[in-house]
Parts: sequence; C-alpha cells; structure tokens
Amino acid sequence: MEQALIDATLERVRAALEAGQVDEAITALTTLHPADRADAFADLPRDEQAEILPRLDAQATADLLEELEGPEAAEVAAHLSPETLADVLDEMEPDEAADLLGDLPPEQAASALAQMEEADEVLPLLAHPDDTAGGLMTSAFYALRRQTTAQIAIDFLRTQRPDAETPYYLYVVDRFQKLIGIVGLRDLIVAEPQATVESIMKRDVVNVPVGTDQEEVARLMSRYDLAALPVVDGNGKLVGVINYAAMVDVIEEEATEDIYRLANVSDGDLQVFSPVRLSVRRRLPWLLVNLGTAFLAASVISLFEATIAKLAVLAVFQSIVAGQGGNAGTQTLAMVVRGLALGEIEFKDAWRAMAREAGIGLIHGMIVGLFVAIGAWLWRGIPILGLVIGMAMVGNLIAAGIAGTLVPLTLKALKLDPALASAVIVTTVTDCVGFGLFLGLATLFLPYLK
Amino acid sequence: MEQALIDATLERVRAALEAGQVDEAITALTTLHPADRADAFADLPRDEQAEILPRLDAQATADLLEELEGPEAAEVAAHLSPETLADVLDEMEPDEAADLLGDLPPEQAASALAQMEEADEVLPLLAHPDDTAGGLMTSAFYALRRQTTAQIAIDFLRTQRPDAETPYYLYVVDRFQKLIGIVGLRDLIVAEPQATVESIMKRDVVNVPVGTDQEEVARLMSRYDLAALPVVDGNGKLVGVINYAAMVDVIEEEATEDIYRLANVSDGDLQVFSPVRLSVRRRLPWLLVNLGTAFLAASVISLFEATIAKLAVLAVFQSIVAGQGGNAGTQTLAMVVRGLALGEIEFKDAWRAMAREAGIGLIHGMIVGLFVAIGAWLWRGIPILGLVIGMAMVGNLIAAGIAGTLVPLTLKALKLDPALASAVIVTTVTDCVGFGLFLGLATLFLPYLK
Repeated sequence: MEQALIDATLERVRAALEAGQVDEAITALTTLHPADRADAFADLPRDEQAEILPRLDAQATADLLEELEGPEAAEVAAHLSPETLADVLDEMEPDEAADLLGDLPPEQAASALAQMEEADEVLPLLAHPDDTAGGLMTSAFYALRRQTTAQIAIDFLRTQRPDAETPYYLYVVDRFQKLIGIVGLRDLIVAEPQATVESIMKRDVVNVPVGTDQEEVARLMSRYDLAALPVVDGNGKLVGVINYAAMVDVIEEEATEDIYRLANVSDGDLQVFSPVRLSVRRRLPWLLVNLGTAFLAASVISLFEATIAKLAVLAVFQSIVAGQGGNAGTQTLAMVVRGLALGEIEFKDAWRAMAREAGIGLIHGMIVGLFVAIGAWLWRGIPILGLVIGMAMVGNLIAAGIAGTLVPLTLKALKLDPALASAVIVTTVTDCVGFGLFLGLATLFLPYLK
Repeated sequence: MEQALIDATLERVRAALEAGQVDEAITALTTLHPADRADAFADLPRDEQAEILPRLDAQATADLLEELEGPEAAEVAAHLSPETLADVLDEMEPDEAADLLGDLPPEQAASALAQMEEADEVLPLLAHPDDTAGGLMTSAFYALRRQTTAQIAIDFLRTQRPDAETPYYLYVVDRFQKLIGIVGLRDLIVAEPQATVESIMKRDVVNVPVGTDQEEVARLMSRYDLAALPVVDGNGKLVGVINYAAMVDVIEEEATEDIYRLANVSDGDLQVFSPVRLSVRRRLPWLLVNLGTAFLAASVISLFEATIAKLAVLAVFQSIVAGQGGNAGTQTLAMVVRGLALGEIEFKDAWRAMAREAGIGLIHGMIVGLFVAIGAWLWRGIPILGLVIGMAMVGNLIAAGIAGTLVPLTLKALKLDPALASAVIVTTVTDCVGFGLFLGLATLFLPYLK
C-alpha cells in the first residue's frame, strides 16, 4: 500500500542526489512516515546512504536507527564517529538504544556509551537478555509518589519533553520505589486538581519480574488488554515498562517462531532474502536430522522387502498410508502448539486432549480408510488390498492423533518449546507406524493379495 | 500463571454456592481481574452460572460478556430477558456489543436492539463484516472541531464518563466530519489552555477505509506503532476507531490462521477442545483432498512398478527422496507465507525469491544428496544406487525451492490467501517429482543396480 509512495519518494531522492542536492534529498525523505523513511533509506545504495547520513541531525539519525531492522541499524551506526553515535543514542528511546548497543561490536558500544550523557538510562537495560521482560522494557516512564496531587503531576508532565513513545500511564511507587498503583492520563485530566494520585490510582497492577520470558509477557498483555506492562525487580521495585509496540513485535516474533519451527526452520529472524550462507546454516541441519529419521522409516520398509519383491504394488500404496498419517499428525500438532502458545491448553489437559485427538483420528481413519480402500480396490481390483490399506489407515491416524498431542505436551513439560522438533518426531512416528502397519498387514494377508 | 488463582477462587465460589451464599460467591469472583473472572465463570457448571447471573448488575454482566469468548458470551446472553440484555448491551463497549449481537439469534438480537438506549452507537457497526476495519472499530471515540481550545477539550473530557477502553487520542474533524488530525491526551495536557487543537494536532494521520481487510489493519498498526487506527467512510468521514486490543486479537488470529492453513486446518477458530463434529468437519475435507493428491503421487510410482518388481530396494529409498523434498518445500513455504504476511516480501520480488530458493535447493540438494548417496551405498553396497538417489535428491530439492516460492506467490497474485492449500500443492509437487526422478533414473540405470 505504502510501497508506491516509498518508490516515488526514492526516485525523487536519487534524482536529487545525482544533481548533488543532498538537502533536497533529505527533504523528500522527511515527507515520509519514519517507518517508511527507514525503508526508503535501506533501499538506497551504500554510497548514497553515506552522502545523506552525515547531513542528518542527531534526532533524525535516532529516528532512522529506531525504525531500521537490528542488523541494518548496526551497519549504519558503524559509519558514525563515537561522538556522533553517542549523541544519537542519547536521542533514541532507551530500549532501542540498548538494543542497538547490543548489536554493535563491543569496542564501538563501549566507546559510545562512555560518551553518552544519558548512559545511566541505558546501562541497566543492557543487563537483560533480549527475549525477557528486562530486554523489552524501556526506562522512559514516569513514577510518582502517592501523595502527589493531580495538578502537580500535570505540571510535572509539562516540564518533560513531549515524546510520542512514552506510555499513556503514570506509575505510583512507595518510598522504596515499589510499584503500588497506576494512573491513566485520562484519570489525571478528569480528577480534581487537589486529589492525590493515591486516591485516583488503580491498585493490583498486573506486572512481571525482569526475567519473565517474552512469550509470557505477550500472553499477559494480550489476555488483560494492557497497553503497557510494568516490570519489577526481585524486590518489587519498578525498573521499567514494556509498551504495546514492543509487545506487538513479540507477538509477531513468537508466531513466526512457531510457524518456522513447525516447518523446521530454526531461526525466527530468517527471511527469504537473508544471506544464503545463514539460510543454509539454519535450515540444512534440520534437513539432515530429517534424513536420519527418513533412514529410520526406510529401515521399517526394508523389513518387508521380501513382501514388496513379491508384490510391487505395495510400494505404490505405502506412501499413501504414511503420508496421510503425516498430514493428520500435522493438523493435531498445529492445534496443540498454537493452543499452548495462546494459553488455551494447559498441561493438565494432556490426557483429555490425547484421548480426544485419538478419537478424532479413529473417525478420520475410518472415513479416509473407507475411501482409500474403495480407491485401491477399484484401481487394482484386489478387495483384500483395500481392506489392508483401510485398516492400516485407521491405525496410523490414531497414532497421528496421539503423537500430535503427546509430543508437544511432553516438550512443554520438559520446559522446551513445544514447536521445537515436534514436526520431525511426529512425522517419524507416522511414517514408521504407517509403513510398518501397512506392510506388516500386507505380509500377513499376502496369500490373498496376489 | 494466573490459573492457580482462578482455581482457588473457583473453589471458594462453589463452596459459597453450595452454602446458598450467592452474594459471597459473587464477591469472590469480583476479586479476580475481569479476564480471569470470565474464565472462572465459564468453568462453572451451567446450573451454578444460572444462580449467579441474575444477581449481577448490568455493568458486571457487561464486563463478563466482553471477556467471554464469542460463542460462550452468546450462550450466556441467551439466558437474559430482552430488557436485561438491552441494559447490558448499553453498558458494553459498542464494538463488543455489536459482536455479541452478531452472534445472537436474529430475533433475540432484534428485540434487544429495539429496547437499547444507545442502539445508534451500535447499529452502524453491525453493517460491516467481522474481519474488516468496520467490523473491528468502535464508535466510542471523541471528535473535536479544529478551533476547540485545549481547555475546552479537557473540560469536555471531564463531562464524559471515564472509560478505560477509550483510546488515548482525540480526533480532529472539519465540519463535514472529515478526519484532519489527531491530538494525544499528553499533548492536550502539555498545551497552553488557550491553544486550539488545530495548533497542536498531528496531521497526516494514518487511517483506513471501513472495508479494509483485518490483516492489512494489523499490518499498518504494527508497522507504524499505532495504539489506535481511525476508520473513515468513502467520503473521508471519521466513523470509528480501532484500538490496539482489537489489533492484538487480529494479529494473533491471523498468525493462528497461517499456522493452521499451513497444517491444513481450515478454521482459525478451531481448538483442541472444540466439538468433535466441528473438528471433523474442518479437518476431514483436507485429508480427503490430500488423499486425492496422494493417489496422484501413487500413480507416478505405479509407472515404475515393473522396475520395483525387479528391485524391491527402490521401495525402501523412494520415500526418502520424496520426504526430503516435502521438508525442504515446507521450509521455503513457511518463510514465504510469513514474509508475505509481515510485508517483508512483495510480489515484485517473486523471481528473485524463486531464483534464490532454487539456488538454496541446489546447495541443500548437493549436501543432502551426498549424505544420502553415501548412506545408501554403505547400507546396500551398491554405489550406483547412491548416485541415483543423490541426483534425484538434488533435482527434488530444487523443485521444492521453486514450488515453495511460486505457489504462495501465485495464490497471493490471485488475491487468495497464500497459506491456503499451499502445503498440499507443494508436497504434491515434491512427491511426484521425487518419486518420478528417483524411479525414472533407477529405471535408466537398472542394469547397473542389480
């Protein structure tokens, strides 16, 4: 939608640069929304970026770096002098500045930090892993004491530089900086000027410790419709706030990760146009794991090689049984993995879920089995072949339901990601059960099949 | 996390109900956060719900219905008289009320609407499909004229009932109700009391027409970090606002839909504990479609039945080639589908993406092919078998890269969901190419394989 606008602006920017009018190029870029501006900038060739960058002021560079993807931002920042970078980092949101510092080479990060004026806002954020509440929070929040009046709070806000990113809440803390309540800007406006924030604050504020996993953060913010989530340390002291933009990123990241893991891609940041080398490193290992399990399934087939040598048509049908098991298992797996991610299924539901999916597998197996039996009979004219393949299908779809439930729930119980490797394990089960059941039954019924 | 608290409260509620102390039960429920309260209520048996429901006031019932899942809310609402339901709907957020009315039987919805006081807030929302901007928006927003002063705006807010759900923005419109700007509450507080909203508003507000698909809504809100997105009609008139809670729901829904569709489950609302009948209806059709494509792949195998009859070991290895193709194709598919959903890939990138994935397929194919060739050789002692399977693997992984890119991009170009049916088509391609290449090459090299 916005792509046409970005493309048109890019043309103006490049024409201006070719004519040597850097200021005109910057003006053209500035007409775009910051997110689009960053996209346009990223689309420029390296040398044209280098013409523009030194002419941007610290705030404009900060806006740009905030909107660029992590690795791109680090690359652009690498071209700035330590002094300029320090000025730019001072203008950035503390959480964004911390993320950027984390992506920079350690020496560059250290020298920039040493020259920053607001390093104390950023330093505490550097201590936390990216995928925890501490790594997501910003230190740009306003904390008030309980006896502050609404009028004083409003006057205080007037003294602060306005900043679109600051959450629309104020936090109330006691003298140990412990979080005791929250006041929305709206409540502040509506309140009597002399009312204390204690009298208008909401108590029982949902909050999380700094170490909370980002998936749990996103789940809570979504469950309770929170636009901002306060983060506390081990003593209940308010240390940061996660705003909804960070949460939206997390929800998207976690969904991408689940989709990728179900598809055996082990890095949620990988994109189609990531470097080929990275792509191979993240995908090839799973293909090799799959190769190992494929040999396992093949060894099940090889048990029945003598049967196949007598009746080659079995090789035609074996894949149908195994493949359908894989499809049915993937359906169950997707529902269980997503249910766990969204908090719709708990571990206590494990047996009930398994029984239900096994039951659905039985129903699906009987119906699909009937179709495949009729298909095989009509195609080959051997009714017993239909019976064998139908029975194997019922068994394999039950196995698919059980494996599709048990594997992710077991991984969850082991505190692993339920999506991780689930697909490999489930399809290995359905391949082995499918080949084994079908070829085993065929071996039993061989006299009636020829 | 909150489950323990819900369970403990449920015990108190049920003990109180057994002792006939309904008020105590309600008090216990009220200690919970509304989202948890709704969960606890939903966990109660039908008859205990029926004891509590009539004792809740309209606001409490409204809070409950807002938090319950759609079908559960409709079921609870079905037990209310038209008068009570009308009162409750008046207390609900207009967008939630509209959603609930859409889920009720038409007669009940009509009679409740007829008795509502604020029906005019809800009626316009009923006209839009659930999955469009119009279906997501609420009519509870504040629009100001440009010459309004900051002080008048604040005084106006004081006259309104405070409401946690109302977005933290005010919208500025001209005399035709056309959206011309946006003012954050923070800007309002910080402004001089006599400043007009026109002088402090932000222009160029990102907005969408009512018919915009919800996926596009979520993408824009995420791209531009918007906490609220104004919705306009065909004349640019402001008709509603989508708040971030609705957007978060959409992002989760769309991610679930992508995961499900890649796994061939055709209904994003389906959950493990959905009714069995519904589950079968949503999943069986895909299994039957897959069965059709499985017969297609089987027919490719049957072309080479004579070869397999001469050399049964081919039946052992054919699945490895086809299966690896399926895995590699799924990797590509997941990345392309997700890239399209997040706006990272555009259709103009199609050829470049396909060339890249074909190239990665070639690299993967050579490495996996080498491993499988060595494995087959070592296992069976037939070097030419290794060569055949290795070559087939290279070809099939290239096909996987091409199909995994082209299928979702083609669906997108046809304005269909790129995730829909992609997995079926891609694995059909990799099955057919895998079986055909491997068995075809084996037939060619048959004299050297025995």
